[in-house]
Amino acid sequence: MKQDPHSFDSSFSVSWTHKLRFTDCPFENGGVVDSLLSNLKPIQVLVVIDSGLASKNDNFMSQINCWCKQTSTIHTEPIIVAGGETSKNDSSVTNQILDAIHKNNICRKSCILVVGGGAVLDSVGYAASIAHRGIPIIRMPSTTLSQGDSGVGVKNGINLFGKKNFVGVFSPPYAVINDSSLLKTLDNQHWRSGLSEAIKVALIKDKLLYQEINSSAELLVKRDSDAVTSVLKQSAKLHLLHITEGGDPFERDAARPLDFGHWSAHKLEQLTNFELSHGDAVAIGLAIDVLLSVHLCNLNLDIAQGVISLLKKLGFPTNHPELLNPDLLHGIEEFRQHLGGQLTLLMLQDIEEPVNIHELDYNLVRQVIDELM
Amino acid sequence: MKQDPHSFDSSFSVSWTHKLRFTDCPFENGGVVDSLLSNLKPIQVLVVIDSGLASKNDNFMSQINCWCKQTSTIHTEPIIVAGGETSKNDSSVTNQILDAIHKNNICRKSCILVVGGGAVLDSVGYAASIAHRGIPIIRMPSTTLSQGDSGVGVKNGINLFGKKNFVGVFSPPYAVINDSSLLKTLDNQHWRSGLSEAIKVALIKDKLLYQEINSSAELLVKRDSDAVTSVLKQSAKLHLLHITEGGDPFERDAARPLDFGHWSAHKLEQLTNFELSHGDAVAIGLAIDVLLSVHLCNLNLDIAQGVISLLKKLGFPTNHPELLNPDLLHGIEEFRQHLGGQLTLLMLQDIEEPVNIHELDYNLVRQVIDELM
Repeated sequence: MKQDPHSFDSSFSVSWTHKLRFTDCPFENGGVVDSLLSNLKPIQVLVVIDSGLASKNDNFMSQINCWCKQTSTIHTEPIIVAGGETSKNDSSVTNQILDAIHKNNICRKSCILVVGGGAVLDSVGYAASIAHRGIPIIRMPSTTLSQGDSGVGVKNGINLFGKKNFVGVFSPPYAVINDSSLLKTLDNQHWRSGLSEAIKVALIKDKLLYQEINSSAELLVKRDSDAVTSVLKQSAKLHLLHITEGGDPFERDAARPLDFGHWSAHKLEQLTNFELSHGDAVAIGLAIDVLLSVHLCNLNLDIAQGVISLLKKLGFPTNHPELLNPDLLHGIEEFRQHLGGQLTLLMLQDIEEPVNIHELDYNLVRQVIDELM
Repeated sequence: MKQDPHSFDSSFSVSWTHKLRFTDCPFENGGVVDSLLSNLKPIQVLVVIDSGLASKNDNFMSQINCWCKQTSTIHTEPIIVAGGETSKNDSSVTNQILDAIHKNNICRKSCILVVGGGAVLDSVGYAASIAHRGIPIIRMPSTTLSQGDSGVGVKNGINLFGKKNFVGVFSPPYAVINDSSLLKTLDNQHWRSGLSEAIKVALIKDKLLYQEINSSAELLVKRDSDAVTSVLKQSAKLHLLHITEGGDPFERDAARPLDFGHWSAHKLEQLTNFELSHGDAVAIGLAIDVLLSVHLCNLNLDIAQGVISLLKKLGFPTNHPELLNPDLLHGIEEFRQHLGGQLTLLMLQDIEEPVNIHELDYNLVRQVIDELM
């Protein structure tokens, strides 16, 4: 407290423990879900499930329905909500959850358990974060993308005015449960979706993980469960530690999200009306940014070509007709605006050696895109 | 980090410095607003003003308009928004601000300066907190109530489903500026409104402040500027320290807001369709709760009657026809539900000696209300 009578400063801090759990049988008696709930002691639990999962994974649905019936703090049927990135384009999922919170009298000492892909975790997490100024949420990501990346994040939000995540908050989940059994019923596109983000985080932070992805590429293509679980687990931990040990978890100061390859990926998703998945868009964005890194930061060309070749091997696209849309370049300014302040793009001078750049020449971007087409 | 391969815990914390400033000339060259902005260095500043203030305080409006013209980071005219508690009953003010943030490309490294009463600070603060996951906000509370209490809080929100503050977030403002010159044009009801909250916090935390309010009651009734500034300054500091030094600023655990007298106050506001002001409702709520404290916690009857007499002297009501509405008692359960968990009501066994109780007999409440009618 300062002595100036006109000025009164008081500092405080708030702590969280980010709890990540790995399992393949979350709902067994005394298993990981029961264990988390017995610590949290919620008054009520509201269960929310992604419609994509509910319609495709009968085995999971019978497990969770059976568990719901046995759990004394659950007073309502699970709520099924629309999934996929387009479900974030309006507030209908968020409003559906706010309505359920209101009608079921879910209070701040209750809890929401949500199972779904990244879009559902984002919309439902946003509703949980604003209702009563925050109801604890347990996330069960159901895709490789959300298990390896977004599911362990501390953000949520939905799109507004055509701008991605225009409204949302920073709000750490109570816990995140990665259930590997959920991945089995994914289609190939959703199954590979988390691997481009794993390659991204490995390139920035973990050479050994990058080598592992390279050496297990054929197993990954064959959807080998052990191979993908190992990669996703490391990807999730790296993303989580970037938040918890990076010194700026709510990105208020200089801290940047792990957004290599993302300026073009976000814009491509929008230009394709989200027909291009986030995982595929990030793969294309990575292909662009490794080539830009060769020109801007002297990244070894063999490394850049190796990344592009790995992405192709895993089934990812590395180009798209919309790359030739002149609007793509607006993605650079939109990216700056969403994060605010000076344009900052992460590029690579080597694996594990990221560099920030603050301007990007449109002609160079066009040249690199021509190389990829 | 635990060694269990299925379990990965990582703790982190986020710090804030709550900055409270007192002034009577915020917009002078190099004054408190300029000084805060030169530290924050926002890309843009968006100015938002309560319509109640804009229509009544020409002197203030010419000061702020002149300052806006001289400030290079301000690119748009101030936005005027509806004020008063009913403005929180829908999302129109919040949406108006989200729209302005979108249209003016206000990013996370920009800033919002909002001048207004508690309702405006709540709606605009909520918009600022969810846009781009949080744009820094400087609050200039314009009523005694917001200068002494809500303006220094870390909450915001709006009403939904007829439930007070159903949506909102915990989000500390970048700074709070209490400008005493803003109080001069308030009508008597808004002028006294902060004094019931000052009495509340004094009863719970500061015997000397309670004595000061008693001894300066006549000056306060005469709207003496020094007397009210002294009381509001202490009230603001006590409310702020409760948050920053109470150990649980976001009320996740056992920490309670300073809500003596508030269970009935909230319900009375709703039953009167917010025709009863929050300050007046709290005065009535305090009258009820000091009498309940006599019965439940052996508070000295003279103290309780002294509080009621002080409230009356300051021009506050201490009863209302709606106290006889049987729905008033639903306020107890609604109060429990909003905060969650077990019912907890703060009562007094003496000044500066609060006690929590966890049940409340309806017949006793009716008896106490009869005493007040």
